[in-house]
Amino acid sequence: MIKTPYLLFLGDAPDQLAAKVAQGIKDWRPENAVGQFRLPGCGADVKLQDMTLEEAKAAGARTLVIGVANRGGVISENWKGVLREAMHLGFDLASGLHNLLRDEADLVAVAEATGCALHDVRVPEVQYPIANGVRRSGKRCLAVGTDCSAGKMYTAMAMDRDARARGIKSSFRATGQTGILITGDGVPLDAVVADFMAGAVEWLTPDNDADHWDMIEGQGSLFHASYSGVTLALVHGGQPDALILSHEPTRTHMRGLPDYSLPSLEDLRDVSLRMARVVNPTCQVVGISVNTQHLEEDAAMACLEEIEGRMGLPTVDPFRQGSDRLVDALVALG
Amino acid sequence: MIKTPYLLFLGDAPDQLAAKVAQGIKDWRPENAVGQFRLPGCGADVKLQDMTLEEAKAAGARTLVIGVANRGGVISENWKGVLREAMHLGFDLASGLHNLLRDEADLVAVAEATGCALHDVRVPEVQYPIANGVRRSGKRCLAVGTDCSAGKMYTAMAMDRDARARGIKSSFRATGQTGILITGDGVPLDAVVADFMAGAVEWLTPDNDADHWDMIEGQGSLFHASYSGVTLALVHGGQPDALILSHEPTRTHMRGLPDYSLPSLEDLRDVSLRMARVVNPTCQVVGISVNTQHLEEDAAMACLEEIEGRMGLPTVDPFRQGSDRLVDALVALG
Repeated sequence: MIKTPYLLFLGDAPDQLAAKVAQGIKDWRPENAVGQFRLPGCGADVKLQDMTLEEAKAAGARTLVIGVANRGGVISENWKGVLREAMHLGFDLASGLHNLLRDEADLVAVAEATGCALHDVRVPEVQYPIANGVRRSGKRCLAVGTDCSAGKMYTAMAMDRDARARGIKSSFRATGQTGILITGDGVPLDAVVADFMAGAVEWLTPDNDADHWDMIEGQGSLFHASYSGVTLALVHGGQPDALILSHEPTRTHMRGLPDYSLPSLEDLRDVSLRMARVVNPTCQVVGISVNTQHLEEDAAMACLEEIEGRMGLPTVDPFRQGSDRLVDALVALG
Repeated sequence: MIKTPYLLFLGDAPDQLAAKVAQGIKDWRPENAVGQFRLPGCGADVKLQDMTLEEAKAAGARTLVIGVANRGGVISENWKGVLREAMHLGFDLASGLHNLLRDEADLVAVAEATGCALHDVRVPEVQYPIANGVRRSGKRCLAVGTDCSAGKMYTAMAMDRDARARGIKSSFRATGQTGILITGDGVPLDAVVADFMAGAVEWLTPDNDADHWDMIEGQGSLFHASYSGVTLALVHGGQPDALILSHEPTRTHMRGLPDYSLPSLEDLRDVSLRMARVVNPTCQVVGISVNTQHLEEDAAMACLEEIEGRMGLPTVDPFRQGSDRLVDALVALG
């Protein structure tokens, strides 16, 4: 668990895209971010107040989050002075970069001297159990995709926001680096050892109030040759009551696999439901989220309408339209 | 890769069952074992010549394999003298125990001083790639089970033996600790980090002669809530041309999951084939292996006949009958 709120470190980000983790925190958990810290030449701006370390400390920030991705995911020598100074002021550090804070000897030395924590959210910090498959109280929703990067995290974040807005008990459950940094907690599922994947998901989505929903961040695809095992562990560890099908309609092949075409939404529905019912016989597919960012408005609306007519399920782009119709579908499950 | 042949260390095994790794090596790769080493009070005997370290060395043994499992998987202090002495004589050590050789400071010190290798086969020794899904030359056979521990390893070992006996090019591909120790090579799939599972299986079963069969050791079950993700990574990384369904007919619930009943063989066939065809559209289910060890001969034969009639596929217990009819089915695929 990463201590909130954060000061978001944008460093010398070359452009806005490089700061997408910081932008995600700002968009989804603005209450977790008291300000941003930029170095000279920074090309990103997430429209938070620029603060010095001292100002952020005074404003209550407890962790400096590296909200910027370098080429190669390295921890730049340019950043080191700020990172060390932050620890001397009492900040923990958190990072989702490939290169780990804990592998930087100078940062480790300061962390040990100051007692500050170094959170590398790509690396599990918990010894997860083997899954036991026992039914848990509370309800769970999982987005499964025709492909990777089809909008599953966005869908779960939007459903969590829109559910809470109408007073429904809900928790977003992060399973990837960005989601963990946004919410301060979660499981970096792609870095968990194979035997413990499903157990990690059970650990992440424990017993809860009968009317509480876990909105579980999906990963990969049951049809993606590289990552399908991770997805099946999510389906079986997550015990979903409700599945959302996620799709990106302009994709011409599976991400990173030029020889593989995407499955149909019908195939995704049938296979996902078959696998989910192994652990939860009452699981239902309740809706479809389509990421239409690469379509013009008219084409996007036509696409959503065609899919809704064909599949007979509420179909939305949560970014354009919000996820209220998907939340309605959860409520209708009772 | 572990250097063969081995001297099999049975230590102070309380009974024969505790020496099942050694027994597996003796049964499946007798050419890999020059003898056995037993401590006073050892209750196991795999019917190899008892040898001192010096005798085994003279007979050509290169690795001392810990072929015995203690309660808790620990490395007994009683064994340490022999293990250290073996390294001084030039033996590498290999172990599949939970507790690792590399975590024993005294063994590490001798290994460093002598240059001997410590192989902990529970821990991956390779940085596996992300799977790329590209079709590979050669043919692959994978056993998938209604449950864990349904006889999948035995089936693949028997098919490899029986195929080679008739001059068919074949390699057993180990994916678990026992298989790795038996053959000296393989991937400890349950210990691989999630993102790299399917890539590890691709790495294990590379391009080969067009008429060569990889007999891939199966793991878990697509229907096992704890381990299904590992199984799907095997199906997608393995690109099987042929699937064998494995079943243990007396199981009353999924292993370790008292609330879960086993899927039918029909369900296993349909789901496995659907998932395998994502990566290999020509994949076929070609036969069934049934582990009838808990049935009397008459009941076993009746069980095999019933399943064969119902499923319309060659059905054998490879332990009772050999796997020739399954190999016939591979040959019939062309």
